[in-house]
Amino acid sequence: MLRYQAPVKDIHFLLNEVLPVKNYANLPGFEEATLDTLLAVVEEASKLASEVILPTNAVGDQEGCQYDPASHGVTTPTGFRAAYRAYVEGGWPGMSAPVEYGGQGLPHLLKFIVDEMVCSTNLSFGMYPGLSHGAVAALYHHADEALKARFLPKLVSGEWTGTMCLTEPQCGTDLRLIRTRAEPQADGTYAITGTKIWITGGEHDLTENIVHLVLAKLPGAPESTKGISMFIVPKFVPETGERNPAFCGGLEHKMGIKGSATCVMNFEGAKGWLVGEANEGMRYMFTMMNGARLMVGMQGLGLAETAYQISLAFAQERLQSRSLRGPQSPDKPADPILVHPDVRRMLLRQKVFNEGNRALAYWVAFHLDNAHANPDPAEREASDDLVQLMTPVVKAFLTDEGYANANWAQQVLGGSGFTVDWGIEQLVRDGRIARIYEGTNGIQAMDLVGRKLSLHGGRLIRRYMGLLRDTLTRHPEQTYAASLKGVLDNLQTATGWLASHGMKDSENAGAAASPYLRLVALSALAYLWAEMDRIAAERIAAGEATPFYTSKRKSAAYFFERGLQEASMLLADIESGKGTLMAHEEAELA
Amino acid sequence: MLRYQAPVKDIHFLLNEVLPVKNYANLPGFEEATLDTLLAVVEEASKLASEVILPTNAVGDQEGCQYDPASHGVTTPTGFRAAYRAYVEGGWPGMSAPVEYGGQGLPHLLKFIVDEMVCSTNLSFGMYPGLSHGAVAALYHHADEALKARFLPKLVSGEWTGTMCLTEPQCGTDLRLIRTRAEPQADGTYAITGTKIWITGGEHDLTENIVHLVLAKLPGAPESTKGISMFIVPKFVPETGERNPAFCGGLEHKMGIKGSATCVMNFEGAKGWLVGEANEGMRYMFTMMNGARLMVGMQGLGLAETAYQISLAFAQERLQSRSLRGPQSPDKPADPILVHPDVRRMLLRQKVFNEGNRALAYWVAFHLDNAHANPDPAEREASDDLVQLMTPVVKAFLTDEGYANANWAQQVLGGSGFTVDWGIEQLVRDGRIARIYEGTNGIQAMDLVGRKLSLHGGRLIRRYMGLLRDTLTRHPEQTYAASLKGVLDNLQTATGWLASHGMKDSENAGAAASPYLRLVALSALAYLWAEMDRIAAERIAAGEATPFYTSKRKSAAYFFERGLQEASMLLADIESGKGTLMAHEEAELA
Repeated sequence: MLRYQAPVKDIHFLLNEVLPVKNYANLPGFEEATLDTLLAVVEEASKLASEVILPTNAVGDQEGCQYDPASHGVTTPTGFRAAYRAYVEGGWPGMSAPVEYGGQGLPHLLKFIVDEMVCSTNLSFGMYPGLSHGAVAALYHHADEALKARFLPKLVSGEWTGTMCLTEPQCGTDLRLIRTRAEPQADGTYAITGTKIWITGGEHDLTENIVHLVLAKLPGAPESTKGISMFIVPKFVPETGERNPAFCGGLEHKMGIKGSATCVMNFEGAKGWLVGEANEGMRYMFTMMNGARLMVGMQGLGLAETAYQISLAFAQERLQSRSLRGPQSPDKPADPILVHPDVRRMLLRQKVFNEGNRALAYWVAFHLDNAHANPDPAEREASDDLVQLMTPVVKAFLTDEGYANANWAQQVLGGSGFTVDWGIEQLVRDGRIARIYEGTNGIQAMDLVGRKLSLHGGRLIRRYMGLLRDTLTRHPEQTYAASLKGVLDNLQTATGWLASHGMKDSENAGAAASPYLRLVALSALAYLWAEMDRIAAERIAAGEATPFYTSKRKSAAYFFERGLQEASMLLADIESGKGTLMAHEEAELA
Repeated sequence: MLRYQAPVKDIHFLLNEVLPVKNYANLPGFEEATLDTLLAVVEEASKLASEVILPTNAVGDQEGCQYDPASHGVTTPTGFRAAYRAYVEGGWPGMSAPVEYGGQGLPHLLKFIVDEMVCSTNLSFGMYPGLSHGAVAALYHHADEALKARFLPKLVSGEWTGTMCLTEPQCGTDLRLIRTRAEPQADGTYAITGTKIWITGGEHDLTENIVHLVLAKLPGAPESTKGISMFIVPKFVPETGERNPAFCGGLEHKMGIKGSATCVMNFEGAKGWLVGEANEGMRYMFTMMNGARLMVGMQGLGLAETAYQISLAFAQERLQSRSLRGPQSPDKPADPILVHPDVRRMLLRQKVFNEGNRALAYWVAFHLDNAHANPDPAEREASDDLVQLMTPVVKAFLTDEGYANANWAQQVLGGSGFTVDWGIEQLVRDGRIARIYEGTNGIQAMDLVGRKLSLHGGRLIRRYMGLLRDTLTRHPEQTYAASLKGVLDNLQTATGWLASHGMKDSENAGAAASPYLRLVALSALAYLWAEMDRIAAERIAAGEATPFYTSKRKSAAYFFERGLQEASMLLADIESGKGTLMAHEEAELA
């Protein structure tokens, strides 16, 4: 019953008018990423999503993955193998991968756009190639040439997939506690022994080989995160075909993403090669992790987009009761429920936050490309600052809002939303994990407040606020100047409060982290909705009063009137400090 | 893995100190409902929940109900039959039912308390006897003596269960559209023909008979809700044992409450008897529905209580990272995650709102008893006004908050919360339906704003606000007088806004409904937290500084500092009116 249409009009608008996509012409390596090229790929991806991936979604949830203890093998649901083959044949795995290893070197922005569509149509499916991307990035940036030559081409082509093996039963967030060991061998390899859990795509039947990037400790390594190294451990050793003792020991039984194999992985003296330098594994891991965090943000958005489309169609079709203004479809037994303000409330919350979140994600993705490719170091630094600051925000806010919005969509459907027939309850269940994995959203908030705010003496947030204030100077006439200024003032006050109270007592920073992250996100959405409104207003003034532009203006009005109301509540929460959160003794919590 | 301990201390506190339970001694029929009696029943119910019902919870979700098309039969999950037998043998079905039909005539308040425990330990199980209660109420108040004598004793004893057959494929909220027909027969019975959907417990194997209360139309009945009549249609005709053609046609496949049989029911000329007067079915239905709505509120609370207990235990046990203040458990590899302010944030939101919601529900339940039994008509009217006003509030707010809180609990558990092993993901899935059925929460808000506010010229809300303002006069010294006054002022402003703008344009009322309902709920919680804080402060001043009382004071501080922040945002949303919700043309929503 699931239906989906890629949000192509919105993508066109963002690429064409909102983001500085024209600049790609000046970025070495991206010269060919013209607007026409990007839009042609968007068109193809839209077909891939609707025609190839979408049909695998419900069956993946119903069948789930099957584990065979005898062979340690995992069978993916019906249709996944064929869809993955089509995905590889279409060249999608290497879209934004380095050209020298067979990739197409297209912008990360384009990968974000395609990721959204893939996650809209089958999140579980999208995770198999999705994790490879992080593995490619880690190897590309940190491995030596020999390892790159051995592993990158087939990871880039999608002939193999990659995993990230971090978590163990006793450690998720706190990787100090890792117990997996790496024993140096005479031949220069390492014997890897330990158990890893929650390994997405740790075992499956989509490719002939799987390449694990494993965090482990060398003998005598320090007891801190500085004692962690990264190893590459293939299921089959490429040159010899030898089966490495890296076995799936079982699958997790989960609330959702049932088509994604979440594996317990047992490394039983498996042969591994050190990636880069010893004891630098945590740093390398973040190369994988930051990309993965942004991608998880796209998962939240992707699911919410599909949910919105279903709920809008339902509200247009379901006849029930009459409008409060009297019959609107007098020839029918009742009016479509779209006439009700409370149904509109649920639909608009979705629409306006999905579109704002899409603009936010693409904006950050553009700066990710600029941070890598711009020839001007100052430009690169500015873009990198934005990406660093906004990575936890995109991950947490887009998944929190994505989940909330999928729930609003489900609510629009009433009882139908609770049945499996409409597909929306699966979107809710699948989306629930995105608030948790790759660092829970609370951890994202701590990363923002504890780490990103203090980098370079607070430069990241200062630069961000400066960028937003600039737009007020450049466009003082914009409709929502006062509202944008208001939320920036809130953010400045909150940041100042953190600087003084968080410094004095870091539990104040911990208490403020989650509302602060939301406040940053709302400020970014305010900036982007103000921009989108201004651009739409210009087009309308130039005679192009299409429903697309008039809708953008009305959505901006909703955002500034209703969506942004939370900002002052968040500031009040931040300024409350740790007091009422930390007051209860343990015995008082029962 | 599910664990549960009935919140007995909190129940004692509410019964003993917060609610006017002593008054039961003066309510005819309730003379025996002394505090000691009530607490003894609470003790027994707590055992029933933990020992009999809890063990059926996970298996109910895993097995679900099975439908056999050949026999039209439904098999409930393993253990349900035995648990139901124990429930009947313990006399629980008739606890608050009329004494003249075999019930124990205990207060509704006590039934609410027990309902919470049952829903905490297996919501699906609780729905089989839960629906009977509404059927008993409808028959007791509206059926003639002959029907009562034939059906009530076995419904009260739990030998039979009851259903509410309202919804049809084309009508849920809008019962005008009912197509089920009732043809008068020569013998005074009616032949009922039509299809009903979402019928909870429409078919099962727990009892020898099932009694359906069915809404249907008589020949020539008006095309409005004034043309609906109520019929009683037993699966087996009691006197003859004849199998009535009221067949289950299949089960819904749902996101949760999988142990609850949600049936399509086909009435194929089934024999029915008219309940009360022709064309009065809608009114009778509300007798069932109002009780059911309050019970659904208890479902939200019950699930959230269990979720809180699991998440607190997890936060105490899971060792990960160090406190921001330095190691708190230096002898362990890491500190329990309970030390983190952001984890506290998730726990306290649950604790404080669960306890506030419990106080709210019990308060309304006390007034439900008083509205029935108080000899003074003025007292009865005052209590009935409160119950009428707060029924949609309890249903919607307790289920919205219950779902949100179960989600916070799940978030505390991180990845573990997403697996089936910890049981919390089931609580989230099960709780999702409570925001939808017995009237979606949006419909509750419309009931509050569109119906309850205008009853008796606005008397209900005036009386409610007067009651709360009275406590400010009686206890001007209370710690949170200013905050309570603040939210009451917000509510007064919002009510005034509705009176003028909602009158002018009812879409303004529709737009304001959902935030207005939340504002009423927050004002009630503010009143109850202020009361609980005042009482706890008195006890502490009297030397009883137990963790229970000190915790209540700290929780009140959390509520007034953080929980109540939303109130001014809600007022702003209400005052925004329908504008930005209704502005988009249909083409602008795609």
